[in-house]
Amino acid sequence: MKKEKISNNVIRRLPRYLRKLDELKTAGINRISSTELGQQLGFTPSQIRQDFNCFGEFGQQGYGYNVPLLREQIASILGMDRGYTAVLIGVGHIGRALVDNFCFQEWGFNLLQAFDVDPGLVGKDVSGVHISPMEALPDFLKNNKVDIVVLAVPRDAALPTAEMLIDNGVNAIWNFTNVELVEPDSKVIVENVHFSDSLLALSYFVSDRYDSQK
Amino acid sequence: MKKEKISNNVIRRLPRYLRKLDELKTAGINRISSTELGQQLGFTPSQIRQDFNCFGEFGQQGYGYNVPLLREQIASILGMDRGYTAVLIGVGHIGRALVDNFCFQEWGFNLLQAFDVDPGLVGKDVSGVHISPMEALPDFLKNNKVDIVVLAVPRDAALPTAEMLIDNGVNAIWNFTNVELVEPDSKVIVENVHFSDSLLALSYFVSDRYDSQK
Repeated sequence: MKKEKISNNVIRRLPRYLRKLDELKTAGINRISSTELGQQLGFTPSQIRQDFNCFGEFGQQGYGYNVPLLREQIASILGMDRGYTAVLIGVGHIGRALVDNFCFQEWGFNLLQAFDVDPGLVGKDVSGVHISPMEALPDFLKNNKVDIVVLAVPRDAALPTAEMLIDNGVNAIWNFTNVELVEPDSKVIVENVHFSDSLLALSYFVSDRYDSQK
Repeated sequence: MKKEKISNNVIRRLPRYLRKLDELKTAGINRISSTELGQQLGFTPSQIRQDFNCFGEFGQQGYGYNVPLLREQIASILGMDRGYTAVLIGVGHIGRALVDNFCFQEWGFNLLQAFDVDPGLVGKDVSGVHISPMEALPDFLKNNKVDIVVLAVPRDAALPTAEMLIDNGVNAIWNFTNVELVEPDSKVIVENVHFSDSLLALSYFVSDRYDSQK
C-alpha cells in the first residue's frame, strides 16, 4: 500500500470514517459514493477523496466505495489488525469505566491485565480482567509484549508512574490523567484524553451560537 | 475584540494553549515569546502567531506575550467567563468519574445537578452534587438555565435520552455514550468524547513507529 506522510488531521478523521463504515455495514449497505458519505459525515466529497488518496486508491470512478473493503483498509491503516496488547494502570472510576464499558477487542486491542495499588482491588477480576499489584508491573512488562499502557491513575501519581513506565521500556501511553506527561520532543508516544479540551471546545461552540442569536 | 470565522483546528488548539499558559502562570512566568511557547508546545512560532491573529493582536513585537493577559483572553474566547451551567445524566462509572475528579468549575462551568434512573442513587449526593430522578429532568430544564447536558448514560439509552433532551429544548450535549446522537446538519451542538477515536489514533502512531523501526 502506498504510504505517504499523513497529516495529523487526516489521522484524526480516520476513526470517524471507520465508525461510519461500520454503521453502513451493519445497515447492509455495500457501496457508497463520496457525495453520500460526505453528506452523512458533514464533509465535502472532495475532502473525502483527498483523505483517502493519502493511502492509495480506494474508490472506483462512477462506482463509489466498496464499504466492507474500505472499512478493512482503514482498520489496517490504523493498526487494528496487528494484535496489539494493553495493560491498564489504575482501576478507579475511569479505569473501571474502561474495563466495564469500553470494548478494547472491538478496536483490535487485547487488554491483558490491570494494575492498582489498592489492596482492596488487587487479586480481583473485573469484567474478566485480572487486577495485579503495581509491584508486579515491571516483571510483567519484561515478560510480555505490551504495546500500550492505559494510564488512569490519580493526578498526583501521574508523573512518577509515567517515569517508571518509561524506565521500564514502555513507549506508548494512553493518558487519562489530565497531566502533561512528557515534553513534545519525547520519544514516548502519548495520546492524551483531555476531557477539558473537549468541554472547552463545546463551550466555544455554545458561545458562538449564543452570540449569533444576539 | 475582532472576531472572524475560526477554523475548527484553531478552536481545538485553544484549550491546549490555555493549559500551557496556566502552567506558565503557576510557575511564575509572566512573559513568553512565540518561539519559546512554540518549543514548549511542539508548534512553530508562525503557527502560534497565526492562531492568535484569528482573535486580534495578543502579543507585542519584541516583547512576546503577556502570559496572564493572554490566558484571560483565551479563556474569554472559550466562554469560560460566561457562567455556564451543566447537568449530568447518568451516574455510572463515567458519570461518577466526572463528578468526583473533573473540576467543572475550573473550566467555568457550574454542575447544577445529576440525574439517574437507579433508585439506589436517586436522592444521594456525590461530591456535593445531588442526584435527582430522571422524571424530574423536564421540569428542571424548564425552570433553570441549563447551557449544556453531560450525557453519560449506557449505549442503549443514548438515542432515546438525546431525543427527550432535544424535545425539552436542550441545545448542547457533551456526549460520552459513544453513540452518534444527531445528523451532521442538526441544530443541536454535540461534542463527542469518543475514546475509540483516541485509541485508534494512538494505534496508528504506534504502527507508524514500529514500521519505521523495521
